Amino acid sequence: MSGRHSRRDEATDARDRLGRIAREWDRPAGEALRWRPGIDVRSLDCAATPGWDGGRDEAEEASAGQAVELADLQERLFAEGRTGGSRSVLLVLQGLDTAGKGGVVRHVVGLVDPQGVMHRSFGRPTPEEAAHGYLWRVRGALPRPGYIGVFDRSHYEQVLVVRVTGLEPESTWRAHYDEINAFEAEVAATGTRIVKCALFVSSDEQRSRLAQRLERPDKHWKYDPADIDTRKLLPEYLEAYQEMLERTSTDVAPWYVVPADRKWFTRLAVGELLLDALRSFDLGWPAATFDVEAELRRLAAT
Amino acid sequence: MSGRHSRRDEATDARDRLGRIAREWDRPAGEALRWRPGIDVRSLDCAATPGWDGGRDEAEEASAGQAVELADLQERLFAEGRTGGSRSVLLVLQGLDTAGKGGVVRHVVGLVDPQGVMHRSFGRPTPEEAAHGYLWRVRGALPRPGYIGVFDRSHYEQVLVVRVTGLEPESTWRAHYDEINAFEAEVAATGTRIVKCALFVSSDEQRSRLAQRLERPDKHWKYDPADIDTRKLLPEYLEAYQEMLERTSTDVAPWYVVPADRKWFTRLAVGELLLDALRSFDLGWPAATFDVEAELRRLAAT
Repeated sequence: MSGRHSRRDEATDARDRLGRIAREWDRPAGEALRWRPGIDVRSLDCAATPGWDGGRDEAEEASAGQAVELADLQERLFAEGRTGGSRSVLLVLQGLDTAGKGGVVRHVVGLVDPQGVMHRSFGRPTPEEAAHGYLWRVRGALPRPGYIGVFDRSHYEQVLVVRVTGLEPESTWRAHYDEINAFEAEVAATGTRIVKCALFVSSDEQRSRLAQRLERPDKHWKYDPADIDTRKLLPEYLEAYQEMLERTSTDVAPWYVVPADRKWFTRLAVGELLLDALRSFDLGWPAATFDVEAELRRLAAT
Repeated sequence: MSGRHSRRDEATDARDRLGRIAREWDRPAGEALRWRPGIDVRSLDCAATPGWDGGRDEAEEASAGQAVELADLQERLFAEGRTGGSRSVLLVLQGLDTAGKGGVVRHVVGLVDPQGVMHRSFGRPTPEEAAHGYLWRVRGALPRPGYIGVFDRSHYEQVLVVRVTGLEPESTWRAHYDEINAFEAEVAATGTRIVKCALFVSSDEQRSRLAQRLERPDKHWKYDPADIDTRKLLPEYLEAYQEMLERTSTDVAPWYVVPADRKWFTRLAVGELLLDALRSFDLGWPAATFDVEAELRRLAAT
């Protein structure tokens, strides 16, 4: 298995490189990006790169290092899950249209072994889903032990699009904040580390990204005329995001505010937050549950 | 979206490179690897590289080209599925322990955007699954339109492990060949291109790979003492594989026989077979269902 051996060497190299790169973070990403009272997303600088002193080139080098470390830690988590462990990670991605959730999945989650990822994209609920209440389909998509779960949109739509478009009366959607906090506390208590990232793209950058979808025939399928109606509700959405952050950023399931006008930063930042979650587990390798020498002898006899 | 622009340029570069690399295939992979009457897997050269004239270095260059083409074609397939198309791809991976199914998922399927992949690993059935019959859980895991489905093991276990270990009487498992052919014909008729790969590792190479799992603490979790019991049944398994190929390689769902002693070849070959399936769709981009100029004007007004 020379491939795997060299992956370990690469992991060591990557950690060395990360040591050099680490100085580009003037403080940990989790600290720089974590939502805290006083942050108003309606006046956020979406082109900022909080915590990151480097530029795009350094970010790309750091991303390459993240890839190797992610692969290593994900495999350890998976191994733990296969041998009785209960821990998992859940990455929740929220953001306005064109904020780059899909790019994060492609470029960050795409670095991880598909065997260890449970990805779920939440669109408009099907009639069956709608009949069960908004947390039903979310519960069904929670990561199993050892897995990294990824939600592209989530139960938070219930306090975002549902609120802004008036699909539920205020008394109903307003009750969801407490419901969601209780739900996430329960999920965290079962061993799932929840990392919630809200991606914020500026109005100008969003216009530019929507224009590109219109100008390029290979992007037409991503465009929906309703996107412009949504865009006109930007102030209402930002108000809903603001209250969501204020009401549902908890110690067991904190929100991170990720400026998203620079795609390379969005991906670097989410990659780092995901890595931080994995690092916090201090993952080893499961001990053998069999007698290694005896098994080697059995094998040699075959 | 400069990232996407450069991906298109990369795709062009990759196609040029593939043109140069293509000569390393002395005939198409699908032709070189497709099972045909007369192939006896009990005397297969598992270190062979059928159809491939190059070595490992050329294979790695070719794999890099595959990555870019896979990303491009997968996105087109996904776009088609989002706009009313019904086509999808299903990659079925079967193989003896250590044949490298997991490596194929990590290194080939891992090249594809996670948003477009539905991966399912089939282990021992749960009681609920067992109660429903062996095709039930398989049906539930079929790729939706626009997706690439990947089965790590599959309904074929019903004529492999079930047969070899006597879990069902012969009259029962023997009926599965026709059931499976009927099932796959139905799946193919709905627009799913089925690509079935049987990976064959030699007995010596399997011993060496199992030994490495025992010698390396970071691999102990992958080792199961039962693997040696399975290994002792190698002749019985090869007989079961042989009959599986003879009975279930059909025009709509052909089997490919992939020698698996050289991991780089296994990955190159499965990547090429997957690409061939996508290429056969001749995928374009969906046409806009809206008035592009009118939408650009609406956008500019926001």
